[in-house]
Amino acid sequence: MRETWVVGAASNRFGKMSETAREAATRVSLAAIQSAGLSPKDIGYTFVSNAFGIAEHQAHVGPLINGGLGIPDVPSATIESACSSSSAGLHEAFVQVAGGFVDAVLVVGSEKLSHLDTLAATSYFAIAADYAFETQNGATFPGLYATIASAYRAAYPTTPEMFGAIAIKNHANGARNPHAHFQREITMETYLHSPIIASPFRLYDCCPFSDGAAAIVVAAKEFVKAPVSEPLVIRASARAGGITEMQDRPDLLALPATQTAGAKAFRQARLTPKEIDFAEVHDCFTLAEALALEDLGFVPRGTGARAAMDGLTVRDGKLPINPSGGLKAKGHPVSATGVSQVVEVYEQFNGLAQGREVPHSETALTHNVGATGGSCSVHIFSRR
Amino acid sequence: MRETWVVGAASNRFGKMSETAREAATRVSLAAIQSAGLSPKDIGYTFVSNAFGIAEHQAHVGPLINGGLGIPDVPSATIESACSSSSAGLHEAFVQVAGGFVDAVLVVGSEKLSHLDTLAATSYFAIAADYAFETQNGATFPGLYATIASAYRAAYPTTPEMFGAIAIKNHANGARNPHAHFQREITMETYLHSPIIASPFRLYDCCPFSDGAAAIVVAAKEFVKAPVSEPLVIRASARAGGITEMQDRPDLLALPATQTAGAKAFRQARLTPKEIDFAEVHDCFTLAEALALEDLGFVPRGTGARAAMDGLTVRDGKLPINPSGGLKAKGHPVSATGVSQVVEVYEQFNGLAQGREVPHSETALTHNVGATGGSCSVHIFSRR
Repeated sequence: MRETWVVGAASNRFGKMSETAREAATRVSLAAIQSAGLSPKDIGYTFVSNAFGIAEHQAHVGPLINGGLGIPDVPSATIESACSSSSAGLHEAFVQVAGGFVDAVLVVGSEKLSHLDTLAATSYFAIAADYAFETQNGATFPGLYATIASAYRAAYPTTPEMFGAIAIKNHANGARNPHAHFQREITMETYLHSPIIASPFRLYDCCPFSDGAAAIVVAAKEFVKAPVSEPLVIRASARAGGITEMQDRPDLLALPATQTAGAKAFRQARLTPKEIDFAEVHDCFTLAEALALEDLGFVPRGTGARAAMDGLTVRDGKLPINPSGGLKAKGHPVSATGVSQVVEVYEQFNGLAQGREVPHSETALTHNVGATGGSCSVHIFSRR
Repeated sequence: MRETWVVGAASNRFGKMSETAREAATRVSLAAIQSAGLSPKDIGYTFVSNAFGIAEHQAHVGPLINGGLGIPDVPSATIESACSSSSAGLHEAFVQVAGGFVDAVLVVGSEKLSHLDTLAATSYFAIAADYAFETQNGATFPGLYATIASAYRAAYPTTPEMFGAIAIKNHANGARNPHAHFQREITMETYLHSPIIASPFRLYDCCPFSDGAAAIVVAAKEFVKAPVSEPLVIRASARAGGITEMQDRPDLLALPATQTAGAKAFRQARLTPKEIDFAEVHDCFTLAEALALEDLGFVPRGTGARAAMDGLTVRDGKLPINPSGGLKAKGHPVSATGVSQVVEVYEQFNGLAQGREVPHSETALTHNVGATGGSCSVHIFSRR
């Protein structure tokens, strides 16, 4: 297996895009390729994610992006795995490069939903749940995750302030990230007085609908030789599935897909959770960040919710979580999210995260969940 | 690189399904796994294609299928590349297995559109074209391919009977395939008197909208050891892209994606077109079969249209094309099509194609196009 690196990365500002998902994808792809000191002609394969392309009447977007980059002959495939689509794309890219099939692969995620109203956008999101057993009966993601949050609160001593501290931390980080959808801090008072969305979730427990695009270039060490920026060595690329339907799960208080993918990733990287310097985890809701910390083995079960309040996961804490602002504040343009987590690691390792820098970071983990845990990708990166 | 086989295959009857795409996918997946003498627990990864899942309000279908198979922890990804979606899935499966990452991979394509009216179905298909430059201006696939057909007729001496002979041949084959949507022969008179759909295409030049599901199991030779049926050795798995927009192409009379993927595949397999015993090619329209023969190097340019009339490509001809009935008669459930071509090779190699058997076949090729040539996959198989 060849040593495989992330050698370039780019993102636009998440929020509202005036351009189409395809246009944004093409533009950030070119920026990612250029940041790697490469030209589009160096790219041998493209993985695109654009789960809600239908909202712009556009599927089969890979050939359009490659055409825009001037490399129409390069093969492309669109990868969908709900909210973990582009981290699934990264995994396939890793397999292609590490396996020696292609030297350099472009992975890009792009999404635009802001031209739809909130009901339509929520409905699009909901197609990633189980239509027959969940969506058709009126369940959408805030309700599904709120159900887990209620069970969590019943099982462990949990205060609203614990969830609030997660939101406050991520907003504080997002305020320092020029790519973030929300670049402003919030206070506990703001959190506690925000409206209930799906009890116990208040507005600030929930990530927003965002437009956005992010791209990375994955390449073989032997192909790049002299990288123009600090590459991310991919130490682990692991994926797993989990039971989609919450009613069929033996335990509501864990996402088995995270547990399985996380355990695989730590084995692959021959590292333990203690050796990770910071992580970007899938905080579509505050509770989801708490669960991720537990399921990845960073903290004991039942203690994830208090980690931000206790100072463990803040930027200058022992284990900074979501220095980018996370899905909560950086935003959640579904198919761009997985790759954008890697963009954050790239910026941290390259001194491009001024104001939100995690000091002395050598090793980072990214964790991206599809829906309520039907799928999960975990990647571990280190400096050379 | 590990020697990689297709060790199991299954398909339902294409046409109209009463069950959902997800249910059909789960059922044929189990049948494919069982035909390989394996159990779901042997599967390490699943690639699903279901390009029009939105028509059933369902994305993220991999975890649902794996859940139904009793293997919810197994990772899955949905692959879309328009009409070549599941052959793209096969390529990723090949890379995963040949590269040593996974021992056995399930590849399944499933589609259901029959609950929509024709206008809605045509609109879904059209999202694989370029929305900004094609679809938005009213172009749908019959019109786009008819434009190529008109150019072909202007460039080369072509009679309506040549296209008719392609349709008649594929219907004759489909009449002998229990999976086929249309299991009846047609005559030249029927062809010539069928209504014009998009000039010069008549009804019988066009493949139908079909529901359907097909699945295969891809596994490492060293994992299977003693296969229970004749495996297909994957001699080549090649993909390429091409300029999507017809107005930007230097030459309307060829699909560069087919030419590039075909040339790559023959190089990989170290075979020439003359050494292929039969092929399943992407005949979404009769003209498309003609182009495929030329672009793959089976016949000189300008002679593909007459190949059926001349007897070259009929079942007992020198180069049988689409013994399954092709997209024309077997049907075209978009995301199932690529895998179903491989099901035909499996059935031919295993004596399961009674009545349409290609005698003494040792080597076969499958060719699957996305849209009007934005993408293409070519696979070459041989017996052990």
